[in-house]
Amino acid sequence: MSKISLEEAKKVFTKFVQNLQNEITKEMQHLDSGIKIMNDPWERKDFKGLPGGGGLTRFHQGEIFESAGVNTSTICGAIDPKFASQLEGSGSDVWATGISLIIHPRNPHIPTVHANFRLIHQGERFWFGGGADLTPYYPHLEDFQYFHQVWKEACGPYETYSSMKKVCDHYFTNHHRGTEMRGIGGIFYDHFYSGNLEKDLAMTMELGNNFIRSYFPIAQKRKDTPWTAEDEDFQLHRRGRYVEFNLIHDRGTIFGLKTNGRTESILISLPPRVKYTYNYQPRPHTPQSEMMDYYQPRDW
Amino acid sequence: MSKISLEEAKKVFTKFVQNLQNEITKEMQHLDSGIKIMNDPWERKDFKGLPGGGGLTRFHQGEIFESAGVNTSTICGAIDPKFASQLEGSGSDVWATGISLIIHPRNPHIPTVHANFRLIHQGERFWFGGGADLTPYYPHLEDFQYFHQVWKEACGPYETYSSMKKVCDHYFTNHHRGTEMRGIGGIFYDHFYSGNLEKDLAMTMELGNNFIRSYFPIAQKRKDTPWTAEDEDFQLHRRGRYVEFNLIHDRGTIFGLKTNGRTESILISLPPRVKYTYNYQPRPHTPQSEMMDYYQPRDW
Repeated sequence: MSKISLEEAKKVFTKFVQNLQNEITKEMQHLDSGIKIMNDPWERKDFKGLPGGGGLTRFHQGEIFESAGVNTSTICGAIDPKFASQLEGSGSDVWATGISLIIHPRNPHIPTVHANFRLIHQGERFWFGGGADLTPYYPHLEDFQYFHQVWKEACGPYETYSSMKKVCDHYFTNHHRGTEMRGIGGIFYDHFYSGNLEKDLAMTMELGNNFIRSYFPIAQKRKDTPWTAEDEDFQLHRRGRYVEFNLIHDRGTIFGLKTNGRTESILISLPPRVKYTYNYQPRPHTPQSEMMDYYQPRDW
Repeated sequence: MSKISLEEAKKVFTKFVQNLQNEITKEMQHLDSGIKIMNDPWERKDFKGLPGGGGLTRFHQGEIFESAGVNTSTICGAIDPKFASQLEGSGSDVWATGISLIIHPRNPHIPTVHANFRLIHQGERFWFGGGADLTPYYPHLEDFQYFHQVWKEACGPYETYSSMKKVCDHYFTNHHRGTEMRGIGGIFYDHFYSGNLEKDLAMTMELGNNFIRSYFPIAQKRKDTPWTAEDEDFQLHRRGRYVEFNLIHDRGTIFGLKTNGRTESILISLPPRVKYTYNYQPRPHTPQSEMMDYYQPRDW
């Protein structure tokens, strides 16, 4: 069926994620000219102590983008068999490449965003995964509709939007708080293989190429909106919920930390400043209390 | 052997934890006269929907004690069998009473402290558990020695100090960061039953009675010490490590959240303000960099 070999697809996709990493950094530099950037290349030893690939962790710290991590990695070789068995394929040797990013803006009118796109090969199986989801702190409905519209259009030719939207809503939920989501969702998929590698590769690359368009126009539009202490207080408490999700529920985070992943590269996702207050609730009849309703699944 | 019945021991211990809860609140009020207190009594439905006990969550918010939770609960009845099987005894019916507390002071010269003491009964087994551990942010060696000395003396008659100290050091470690502990340890024990219920009850109550003496003299001594922005920055980042431990590793937190425990009562342990910075490290040759060495196991 497929005209491209798995080895070719790996090469193409590895180049793709590295290029996307640079494009996203450029977008942030464009909006936030003084942003500081720290590049941390790292190498991995595999479970047997042999060379196991590595990655490039890139941390950004600026005025608009208070903290952002845009990471790529290509790992290979053995992983701990007890964790390998939790993956889709068989055997302890895994090859995986991907980009993973999180952007925490300072202004509560600009949402936090997370995205990742990856290709994994284990034994006789290989699959794609990824997605993008938004965590806003202020009820700008038009921004939410815009974000979802971009992903709806991007998924359109593949007819995957409604399933990927549903998976995203369910996955990014703080289940210990009932049906309350981390944010307002987006799209998410895992173990994706249609039987046509060329088509799947094209889809994941096309989705990845939509990330910049899905987010940066919102950041551009809201970056000069003034905010109040109450806006920020809500943002910092919602960032607390973000930490709860990442450390209690996020499979990638927990898997990474338990399989001796690079801790700082994984926890780059945590927000720079956070608040927790017992029984925190926003004041009634404020934009913040209105925002709470959006953290439940809905059709956009 | 034992002259006291399990039912009598449960009554005595339940009264004990309720009384200790009040005593600890009084100590905070004594040092922090304007401290606000919020009492939240709650009731639990068990896994079958029947009355399953309840508790009293008490939140404190003050000038010296920025955020403190001192909770008691007595729960009974059925729990989810899939979690009941993780406990020491057999069967899905559990009875448990205990006190659990965490105090996050504002001043980085006063350590954060955590303690809990509990009695659990499941099927044919019952056991005690508990402990106290300190998380300081400034290298006041004499305070650390004082805290450990109190627990050494308290454990003395029972000859349990060295084992309880070792278990504590190992338990309160952020294993995803190698051997780095959450704080500087203290004592910790679980599944404790010597064969003599009366003696075990006496021990856990005596340990509980030492909590006030182990901590509040330190708070009293350091409450007026001025602090710098750098002191606070370090404190807020270490509080981040506190969150990492509680949400990634703490068995009680994870067990509580996954068994439909009262989320707000469990997460009252999270610090009020927190910072995360990629690759955070204190400046060399500062009290903060000196402090890092104390977060490794040592003899006191």
